[in-house]
Amino acid sequence: MPRALVFDAYGTLFDVHSVQARADRLWPGKGAQLSQLWRAKQLEYTWQRSLMRRYVPFSQVTQEALEYACATLGLVRTPEAAQALMDEYRRLAVFPEVPDALRRLSGRFRLAILSNGSPDMIDPLVAQSGLAFEAVLSVDACRVYKPAPEVYQLAVEKLGLPAQDVGFVSSNCWDALGAKSFGFSVSWINRAGAPVDRLGFQPDEIVRGLHEVLA
Amino acid sequence: MPRALVFDAYGTLFDVHSVQARADRLWPGKGAQLSQLWRAKQLEYTWQRSLMRRYVPFSQVTQEALEYACATLGLVRTPEAAQALMDEYRRLAVFPEVPDALRRLSGRFRLAILSNGSPDMIDPLVAQSGLAFEAVLSVDACRVYKPAPEVYQLAVEKLGLPAQDVGFVSSNCWDALGAKSFGFSVSWINRAGAPVDRLGFQPDEIVRGLHEVLA
Repeated sequence: MPRALVFDAYGTLFDVHSVQARADRLWPGKGAQLSQLWRAKQLEYTWQRSLMRRYVPFSQVTQEALEYACATLGLVRTPEAAQALMDEYRRLAVFPEVPDALRRLSGRFRLAILSNGSPDMIDPLVAQSGLAFEAVLSVDACRVYKPAPEVYQLAVEKLGLPAQDVGFVSSNCWDALGAKSFGFSVSWINRAGAPVDRLGFQPDEIVRGLHEVLA
Repeated sequence: MPRALVFDAYGTLFDVHSVQARADRLWPGKGAQLSQLWRAKQLEYTWQRSLMRRYVPFSQVTQEALEYACATLGLVRTPEAAQALMDEYRRLAVFPEVPDALRRLSGRFRLAILSNGSPDMIDPLVAQSGLAFEAVLSVDACRVYKPAPEVYQLAVEKLGLPAQDVGFVSSNCWDALGAKSFGFSVSWINRAGAPVDRLGFQPDEIVRGLHEVLA
């Protein structure tokens, strides 16, 4: 049994597609498409910039991915629209099962977040959510994005625990497998019923929501 | 003016979606969807494995991405079907303008390929294409995928030229920008009319096909 649980934030605790409704008010009928492409590009840019050794904070990556997504879909992106969508990212909805599940787990484990989000994005998001963690860790401290091992090492250092005492929870399969490759035990939250990514590792458990993690 | 031109292979000289027709015969009506998802996952896995420091050759990445894509789309992938599609990858179609354009460029520049493809994939593909290059270089020599700078450095070493004397040509914008970040001058072949990726760099030229490169 792990002594601490470390959670991914975007997509795991917080629903990144909750920006869709706001986008749909800005560009009627385009919210879903924008939200999907924005998220896909946001992740691609984290991987590509990490490999290029051209790190910039997640807030910049997120703005640049939005710019690309709007250009692709032919949507006029005023400064006000861009700001409104970036603001939404700082108040994403929490998945419905998350508050109760975290309360239950907090009795058994130390709890932390390990996120791609830079402090200017992740700190206000967690603060307004009402969720409580011992630590909110950002890859910004090592200037490379998940799934680089340096990122998971950050949790080991900040929690003062060996990797085998850490359980990692993510809904992003590649993130869960990156953490597994590093040495954590991992729970993959597979809300969408997707196949396991073929990256040479398997999650220790596959669950449908946070309420099932180590249940 | 560069002294050598270095080309990306997949998507730039060779059309990766030429597997679509074969896939469509295996799973009628599903060829386009499979081809798109297969390619997207293939690239994701190269980035994720590079960051995880879990390199495996492109032939394995390509097979694993096919496995994932079939699982996602609910397609039954027999060993024969998988082999047939992998075989197609070794005889991808050359884009129509490529042979003439390369003949023209070969009078002015040294020509090489720098590819994610492992030698077991890229060597037979180039051999059967009838195209001629001074060197066919694979990232397999440095065990990390594009856009890591080590990859572009490989071309500098093998050609014995400084980066500023190398022109790099790719239809993958992130690859062109990774090469630009490294120090090459770059031509982005934008066949699809896509926006430039937001990665902090701009291509030196944007063209619609290989016939327009340094024309």
